[in-house]
Amino acid sequence: MTSAIAYATPSAKAPFEKTTIERRELGPKDVLIKIAFAGICHSDIHTGRNEWGEAHFPLVPGHEIAGVVEEVGGDVSKFAVGDRAGVGCMVDSCRECENCLAGEEQYCLRGNVGTYNAKGKDGRWTDGGYSSHIVVDEDFVLHIPDGIELDVAAPLLCAGITLYSPLKHWQAGPGKKVAIIGLGGLGHMGVKIAHAMGAEVSVLSQTLGKKADGEKFGADHYYATSDDATFKELKGEFDLIVNTVSASLPMAKYLSLLRRDGTLVSVGAPAEPLEVPAFALIMGRRSWAGSAIGGIRETQEMLDFCAEHGIGAEIEKIGADQIDEAWDRVVDSDVRYRFVIDTATFAS
Amino acid sequence: MTSAIAYATPSAKAPFEKTTIERRELGPKDVLIKIAFAGICHSDIHTGRNEWGEAHFPLVPGHEIAGVVEEVGGDVSKFAVGDRAGVGCMVDSCRECENCLAGEEQYCLRGNVGTYNAKGKDGRWTDGGYSSHIVVDEDFVLHIPDGIELDVAAPLLCAGITLYSPLKHWQAGPGKKVAIIGLGGLGHMGVKIAHAMGAEVSVLSQTLGKKADGEKFGADHYYATSDDATFKELKGEFDLIVNTVSASLPMAKYLSLLRRDGTLVSVGAPAEPLEVPAFALIMGRRSWAGSAIGGIRETQEMLDFCAEHGIGAEIEKIGADQIDEAWDRVVDSDVRYRFVIDTATFAS
Repeated sequence: MTSAIAYATPSAKAPFEKTTIERRELGPKDVLIKIAFAGICHSDIHTGRNEWGEAHFPLVPGHEIAGVVEEVGGDVSKFAVGDRAGVGCMVDSCRECENCLAGEEQYCLRGNVGTYNAKGKDGRWTDGGYSSHIVVDEDFVLHIPDGIELDVAAPLLCAGITLYSPLKHWQAGPGKKVAIIGLGGLGHMGVKIAHAMGAEVSVLSQTLGKKADGEKFGADHYYATSDDATFKELKGEFDLIVNTVSASLPMAKYLSLLRRDGTLVSVGAPAEPLEVPAFALIMGRRSWAGSAIGGIRETQEMLDFCAEHGIGAEIEKIGADQIDEAWDRVVDSDVRYRFVIDTATFAS
Repeated sequence: MTSAIAYATPSAKAPFEKTTIERRELGPKDVLIKIAFAGICHSDIHTGRNEWGEAHFPLVPGHEIAGVVEEVGGDVSKFAVGDRAGVGCMVDSCRECENCLAGEEQYCLRGNVGTYNAKGKDGRWTDGGYSSHIVVDEDFVLHIPDGIELDVAAPLLCAGITLYSPLKHWQAGPGKKVAIIGLGGLGHMGVKIAHAMGAEVSVLSQTLGKKADGEKFGADHYYATSDDATFKELKGEFDLIVNTVSASLPMAKYLSLLRRDGTLVSVGAPAEPLEVPAFALIMGRRSWAGSAIGGIRETQEMLDFCAEHGIGAEIEKIGADQIDEAWDRVVDSDVRYRFVIDTATFAS
């Protein structure tokens, strides 16, 4: 067993506490990673505050993990001590169902093992990246290319792949008009990646407040959705819209912005169902789809793509004592654009 | 002008009346069709009873028209007197927008001209197929192949193409598992066509009442959706589901029947929006799409396909004096599977 420093929330409304957890004994295929940075994802908060139900406390969240390999098991072939390594939202899956066999472990039919708040095959609850170390089977560990700093790489493991996967699947690229709804932690990755893929990128944001940022990230156009003229002007404009906003949007209005055969992809979900008139889809043969993170193979592809195109997340680096405050600020959408916990602050 | 016998509903709640209407003077590109049969589509009723608003009375419905060419304009090149001809839901479109240029006139960005209850480019209201004759631009007239009788061909012009188009677009065929929700006028065409395309076809119907019919039409499996075991058994089963039911369905349950990357296509729509949890799409990268009839080129392709595979609609032939009763029976789902008005009964 390896003792690790971790920051855990003891119950749904309690502040974080520093604690020590035991990572499992290194198995033959396991990799021990010394975590350098862990991103804060909104789902950490949903889980930690028990908004999705069924949280197991004390909870160590974190599934945007970047660090360096410190030790490897005897049968590990893909990683060596000193390698730069990342872990995302999954640490295992059934590996046998048709989705796992297709490399789409995010859709594992038996349910993959989440990086935190999940029961592993050994029956133990998983603990996430708000921690000094983690032990993960090498098949669920990613190589972080040299071209990306570890701090800006961490959020790629969830926010990055969550946008890369649908942009790739629905073929964002030259000649395609792509809109990203929301310029937050997810949305800003979408703008950077869609731009790098060669698409013509628009941001649909409530206001023009972050317009300069959006353009800096690669947006060709920036529209305020609080202005109804936006929906008139952009009717039938986009081939693909990726919705990163978890709030309940007036879906018919957004669907009307799609061209014939266009797709609106939701990557986040409000707790309550969305109301969608079928006619908004029937007119123009439009689709409303969903997408969840990406498979391990695709996550590696995304990291390589980001390194090649010089893409990292925009981050605000924080220390361990700022996690509670950071969570509140994420809920208030007051972060540009992702908080990343620096584990160097754990010792103090 | 050509005088035609027609059956019109004078107001939203009034019974049909026999009347005489004037069809427009034959233009150089126009075809005068002597109508033999006209199918009764549920949208005739929605329109005629003003459930969709904005009906123009007196209303002559009907957009499932089969007959024989009686006269052609001077520049008509595709039809000759005596040809078997059909007319579906559209009689014109802008012909200039990107959708029209792509042969997808059903999605004309300026709105195509409906076969009835629409204003044509000449400013006149269109009258539909519950009539002895109709005049239509040859570009919106279909050839009915010799292999199909006119009576069973009529419903293909709306019900047939409404199912053919999404089945083709989402690639129903060998190796694909396709489910059709509802075995009515639309659904029974879906079963026949999907079967002829080579897909493995399931019917999802409220009860097993029409099971023998479904199997006769080509269904490999037949399930009752009133039995909750159906949803457990079929979880993740289908590549494609076509929903022909306009009622409000529990969408999350139906979406759970899709495999990864599967699509549920709605071809009918309830008046009120459907409630759909985004998670039902996110899990498995599923899509919910819509589809409306088909373009003119595709409608011809569908007719040729049906002739080749011996497919016609299952019909109950009625006389002009039975239209009111037939409408009530359609609303009660008491028809197997499409009413077709025989215009030979108009003279009496």
